[in-house]
Amino acid sequence: MQDQLFRKIDTLFPEMVEIRRYMHQHPELSFQEVNTAKYIQSFYEKLGAKVRANVGGNGVVATIQGAKPGKTVALRADFDALPIQDEKEVPYKSLVPGVMHACGHDGHTATLLVLAKVLYENKENLQGTYVMIHQHAEEYAPGGAISMIEDGCLDGVDVIFGTHLWATEPTGTIQYRIGPIMAAADRFEIAIQGKGGHGAQPHKTKDAIVTGAQLVSTLQQIVSRRVDPVDSAVVTVGSFVADNAFNVIADKAKLIGTVRTFNESTRDFIAAEIEKVVHGTCLATDCTYDYQYDKGYPAVVNHAAETEFLIDCATKVPEVTKIEESALQMGGEDFAYYLQNVKGTFFFTGAKPETNGSYPHHHPRFDFDEKAMVIAAKTLCAAALNYQTKEQNKREKSETLA
Amino acid sequence: MQDQLFRKIDTLFPEMVEIRRYMHQHPELSFQEVNTAKYIQSFYEKLGAKVRANVGGNGVVATIQGAKPGKTVALRADFDALPIQDEKEVPYKSLVPGVMHACGHDGHTATLLVLAKVLYENKENLQGTYVMIHQHAEEYAPGGAISMIEDGCLDGVDVIFGTHLWATEPTGTIQYRIGPIMAAADRFEIAIQGKGGHGAQPHKTKDAIVTGAQLVSTLQQIVSRRVDPVDSAVVTVGSFVADNAFNVIADKAKLIGTVRTFNESTRDFIAAEIEKVVHGTCLATDCTYDYQYDKGYPAVVNHAAETEFLIDCATKVPEVTKIEESALQMGGEDFAYYLQNVKGTFFFTGAKPETNGSYPHHHPRFDFDEKAMVIAAKTLCAAALNYQTKEQNKREKSETLA
Amino acid sequence: MQDQLFRKIDTLFPEMVEIRRYMHQHPELSFQEVNTAKYIQSFYEKLGAKVRANVGGNGVVATIQGAKPGKTVALRADFDALPIQDEKEVPYKSLVPGVMHACGHDGHTATLLVLAKVLYENKENLQGTYVMIHQHAEEYAPGGAISMIEDGCLDGVDVIFGTHLWATEPTGTIQYRIGPIMAAADRFEIAIQGKGGHGAQPHKTKDAIVTGAQLVSTLQQIVSRRVDPVDSAVVTVGSFVADNAFNVIADKAKLIGTVRTFNESTRDFIAAEIEKVVHGTCLATDCTYDYQYDKGYPAVVNHAAETEFLIDCATKVPEVTKIEESALQMGGEDFAYYLQNVKGTFFFTGAKPETNGSYPHHHPRFDFDEKAMVIAAKTLCAAALNYQTKEQNKREKSETLA
Amino acid sequence: MQDQLFRKIDTLFPEMVEIRRYMHQHPELSFQEVNTAKYIQSFYEKLGAKVRANVGGNGVVATIQGAKPGKTVALRADFDALPIQDEKEVPYKSLVPGVMHACGHDGHTATLLVLAKVLYENKENLQGTYVMIHQHAEEYAPGGAISMIEDGCLDGVDVIFGTHLWATEPTGTIQYRIGPIMAAADRFEIAIQGKGGHGAQPHKTKDAIVTGAQLVSTLQQIVSRRVDPVDSAVVTVGSFVADNAFNVIADKAKLIGTVRTFNESTRDFIAAEIEKVVHGTCLATDCTYDYQYDKGYPAVVNHAAETEFLIDCATKVPEVTKIEESALQMGGEDFAYYLQNVKGTFFFTGAKPETNGSYPHHHPRFDFDEKAMVIAAKTLCAAALNYQTKEQNKREKSETLA
Repeated sequence: MQDQLFRKIDTLFPEMVEIRRYMHQHPELSFQEVNTAKYIQSFYEKLGAKVRANVGGNGVVATIQGAKPGKTVALRADFDALPIQDEKEVPYKSLVPGVMHACGHDGHTATLLVLAKVLYENKENLQGTYVMIHQHAEEYAPGGAISMIEDGCLDGVDVIFGTHLWATEPTGTIQYRIGPIMAAADRFEIAIQGKGGHGAQPHKTKDAIVTGAQLVSTLQQIVSRRVDPVDSAVVTVGSFVADNAFNVIADKAKLIGTVRTFNESTRDFIAAEIEKVVHGTCLATDCTYDYQYDKGYPAVVNHAAETEFLIDCATKVPEVTKIEESALQMGGEDFAYYLQNVKGTFFFTGAKPETNGSYPHHHPRFDFDEKAMVIAAKTLCAAALNYQTKEQNKREKSETLA
Repeated sequence: MQDQLFRKIDTLFPEMVEIRRYMHQHPELSFQEVNTAKYIQSFYEKLGAKVRANVGGNGVVATIQGAKPGKTVALRADFDALPIQDEKEVPYKSLVPGVMHACGHDGHTATLLVLAKVLYENKENLQGTYVMIHQHAEEYAPGGAISMIEDGCLDGVDVIFGTHLWATEPTGTIQYRIGPIMAAADRFEIAIQGKGGHGAQPHKTKDAIVTGAQLVSTLQQIVSRRVDPVDSAVVTVGSFVADNAFNVIADKAKLIGTVRTFNESTRDFIAAEIEKVVHGTCLATDCTYDYQYDKGYPAVVNHAAETEFLIDCATKVPEVTKIEESALQMGGEDFAYYLQNVKGTFFFTGAKPETNGSYPHHHPRFDFDEKAMVIAAKTLCAAALNYQTKEQNKREKSETLA
Repeated sequence: MQDQLFRKIDTLFPEMVEIRRYMHQHPELSFQEVNTAKYIQSFYEKLGAKVRANVGGNGVVATIQGAKPGKTVALRADFDALPIQDEKEVPYKSLVPGVMHACGHDGHTATLLVLAKVLYENKENLQGTYVMIHQHAEEYAPGGAISMIEDGCLDGVDVIFGTHLWATEPTGTIQYRIGPIMAAADRFEIAIQGKGGHGAQPHKTKDAIVTGAQLVSTLQQIVSRRVDPVDSAVVTVGSFVADNAFNVIADKAKLIGTVRTFNESTRDFIAAEIEKVVHGTCLATDCTYDYQYDKGYPAVVNHAAETEFLIDCATKVPEVTKIEESALQMGGEDFAYYLQNVKGTFFFTGAKPETNGSYPHHHPRFDFDEKAMVIAAKTLCAAALNYQTKEQNKREKSETLA
Repeated sequence: MQDQLFRKIDTLFPEMVEIRRYMHQHPELSFQEVNTAKYIQSFYEKLGAKVRANVGGNGVVATIQGAKPGKTVALRADFDALPIQDEKEVPYKSLVPGVMHACGHDGHTATLLVLAKVLYENKENLQGTYVMIHQHAEEYAPGGAISMIEDGCLDGVDVIFGTHLWATEPTGTIQYRIGPIMAAADRFEIAIQGKGGHGAQPHKTKDAIVTGAQLVSTLQQIVSRRVDPVDSAVVTVGSFVADNAFNVIADKAKLIGTVRTFNESTRDFIAAEIEKVVHGTCLATDCTYDYQYDKGYPAVVNHAAETEFLIDCATKVPEVTKIEESALQMGGEDFAYYLQNVKGTFFFTGAKPETNGSYPHHHPRFDFDEKAMVIAAKTLCAAALNYQTKEQNKREKSETLA
């Protein structure tokens, strides 16, 4: 049956492209994806599938019930766009100034919709239940996943799979990773309060720039000295602002930055270490400070068995030419929350454009190879179907033993 | 005759106050002092004195010719105001929003005008020539002094005296200093060019904030380690701007600051040392840079003999109760240029208000004790008259010897 | 046959312990292991096996020729001790003051000797050839491996296996890792030359301590900013010496440290980056420098197929209760050189003492669980025997196909 | 009478040289000057003058009573040598290996002894009392001055004068300074306690070298940012020691340094600021510390009237060709203590050698122009005599008024 579904996916490739391009022309920012959600909802309604809108916000969840008993498999695609001006010259260029699908979520959605159609049309032959999670607001913390989970999108779900089209890897590649695959991405803000004054009279001031500079230097030690070298972490001060006339001494300096980690203990450790450094440095120079640490998405931590299962499924997709371990990715993904609630795995589907060069995600000229959507759809399809078989085998085996 | 002139000055104190308060209500910013210049010009025209307007810009120079032969003594007062909102509650509060005589230049002008009147009215008894230099634009580099000198205001001048009403010292105090008294005040700008990128991928970037921070730290060594500890210098980074989102790595950072020194060799040394530090630090971290060092006013360096002469003159002013050496002042003054061209000295005339507290110069509530204008006028008057006597004695003595 | 050999190993456990304890009492420092080498040589001579002494120094290589054709499998054990005073209270405590087997090399040797005996006594049933590499001087760069390889110890060898008894992991554990498992361990030395002088006259000097301090701070950026966060590296300044009277300014400072990396490109990158930082920092502060970077052992990089094969072999050892991926180890091992020349893998054999607590390697109270020697011997034995089978199967398969 | 005494001093120049050279050949270290003290004592005994030995240690105090009533004037010379090997080639080179009069104290003593002889031989004509303070241990804190004062050397003294032969200024120069002339010279010691460990495992340690490096950088701010730029101060870390193997992380680092200041408030401020920096820096990096601040000699602060008086006296010495204000000297002198107890002044007597180049004080080739001793003796003589006259005039004037 898998082969049959694969062929259907092939047949529907033009529709997949059409959906994707429509979405590409009509991008909506995180938490503002009203029309995109309606589009998705309407797709399922036309299909006749059970669909629930406004799940945890703009989220949409469709459920496809197979005729035979089985497990409940969730598949997820996100659908928000970015505040970036589309600069590429293609017929399907964004029609919304300053907003663009520069991360491939349009492709994720098209993939999942078409896969849903294929599954729905074959539901009589299917075991189990398929939950299509169309998530809003992946790009902007706190993200849509948390609220959709709170609104029940994972209720009864046994396993979840998700993928990201990955425009920097060749089409045909599937990248997996057991354990952490994407980083926790947090934000911190340090406001140093010194005492301003005339640039010629440092002794009457507390120079917030000198303190801030010392702070930036000392913060380097967190990664270089305090985190286990075989762990991975980043502490970046991305912004340092003390904007004054040349002949004054700065009364305040504001530092904003990000922390990336792959496990919760390192994450909490670094959040505390930053404050320790800020506290000590300000004491040393008689300044005061405000420190704020805002946790973004946690690390995406793939489950081992489900990841190995996914690898196996990927071997069954004819277009897959390479299955390899992914490097740790320092970027964040709120797919992390699903994996904190149910078993599953998140993987990358290579989608490097063959022509026009390849631009990184979030670039104004970003695009991806649309053929990769077929691979993503088939891999998710294989995972969904084979999961049923695997679990049934497990059940039968345990029944035999019993 | 000196006593006679002193009495006239006393008599004209109300006019002095009136002039000062009129100017205080009608302040004009540096290089925009059109009406103030007209006011001064008109004062001399009414008096009948020879006056030249538009000297090197808005400068005004009046000349009073004594009936007897003698030396040419220049006296200088500046007349520009500052971009500060007057916040004090007095009847003569500034009428111009956001502009204020917050440094006492109104008082300098009133002092010099009244002194000029007194001298003019006694010109029949005076030896020599008196050049009243009313300078525009002292507060804003490149200042008015250079252009007024280029336009001839010092032509034929033998000696120059100038004073600053000093609201932080009690009225009755005259502060002198041989050699440097006010600092050279320069401006520098450092633009660090790194390579920006994603906050999670430091290895693909050259972090301009980390380099800038290192730079600020290393710049501290210039004063702490490289300048002679018994010399005085300040290197201040007043502005540090790398304004970005939290999750990027800064591609550039801009640092702006000031250097204060008291002698030209230290000044040039520091300008070169900053570049050395910038160069090395950028090399160490693979960044590039632009470095610009703009010299402001040089140090005000008083001539020894003229300063000792001024001390002597100050003893002749009855209201002077204390004559003391001034501390080195880190602020700048373009009186420096006059002293690079002719002999002379610049001194401070204590003018601390007796009531309402004392605010520092450039403060929105700044004011000064108007009685100090009498002291300033008399001290300058004594300097002008006695200089003639002193020089005549010198001439006679040398003629006798010859 | 494997089971039979395993039983023999069990039987010979007392001899294994006896050998280990004899060696423990008679430790010899790296490159000085004359008696240990003679002991090993003599063991093989008594056995009747072919043995070559003085291989690349104090190295000893024995060869056991199986009766049947097959591959040549090398097994390696190191036998040098450390300059540490044995502080534990056991009957087999070191008899040599200041010298101690604090890393388990005595155990490695006992394990390999007994395994050799077992193999030798069964050589009639064995396929292929077994090369027992007893390596001197693992603890002290440049180590014994290079010279033994140059002296032919790997000639004709098809594959090599080695293990380290690991006293921090429970007995029964085998830890493997594909790719890098142990770090490259290098040494660097930076001599900063400033200009000394009186502590009260910094402007006449170039303060080597201040420069050195800046250097240490900037070096932190190499790990925190320049190395890929998902790569692992350490840059440590272990020694900073500028030893002077309190009232002088340091003319020189000497910094010595270590760099740990897992791949050659990062290694070379860091060696170059350190010099870049040193160069720039010294330029910024007008000092000069000498910089020396001495490469120690490269990273131990396990071959994938051989590691997976080893995992499989380990499952066949009854005492092995846990097979897990090892964390990256920042310490160095000159087993690295063997793996640069032939295929193979290096693994850890858990050997945590059941009583008396567990001390880290190189600790004065270090000891290990002697039963772990049996596990090490059996795992190596399984690897040696199964390798023959596996290769034979491969040959037969390819012959069939041809 | 002054001229008469001046002529006697001229006549006794050979004896002065002889005494100086004898002492130069027989130098003794601070607190060990037993033979030097005996030599001085014996000189006075031969003279017949009243002398007291063992004053506050090895100090010697002689008193010369003039026949007429008057004030009590103290003159001070120090007589200890330094732990330096004499490297110059002269007939009077030090005979004691490793000990040398490298600071001119031999000259001070010869000057004072000969002046004492001249005064003693004219005591019948002298007014007042002359206390010759021969002080031991100037070079080594706590110095000899404190204990000699405690032992009464200043009892009844009205005024004190002292000079230092100054080999870097030309003979004929007298340098004075009102207020601070020589710095307070203190010592501090900072022991940073981190947590040592393996160089490859920074996360298990607290790296004392990195903390110490940060500390050195932050300490620069004390002078560059916190001390008034027109004040003078030095904070030098002269020693930084964390001496370890290359592959460990330092558990401790020891920093030793000096602080130089010219007024007590800056001195106390810096002592406290250092601790603030140490405290904050250690907090930021989780280390602990010991901090010790040992005050050395305070600043030598000359009294204004006595300094002006000394200037006047110096004009009366024919060999004095230049009287100028001294720069602030960052070195310390325990003459400071005398000036905390009685009025007086300390000045420099130029003594630059005419040939053989000029080496700085404390240099192994240091020497001075012996003719300067005559100038020093005459200036002190003039001060001693004229002080009596001045005070008598004052008395008479006040009696007249009364």
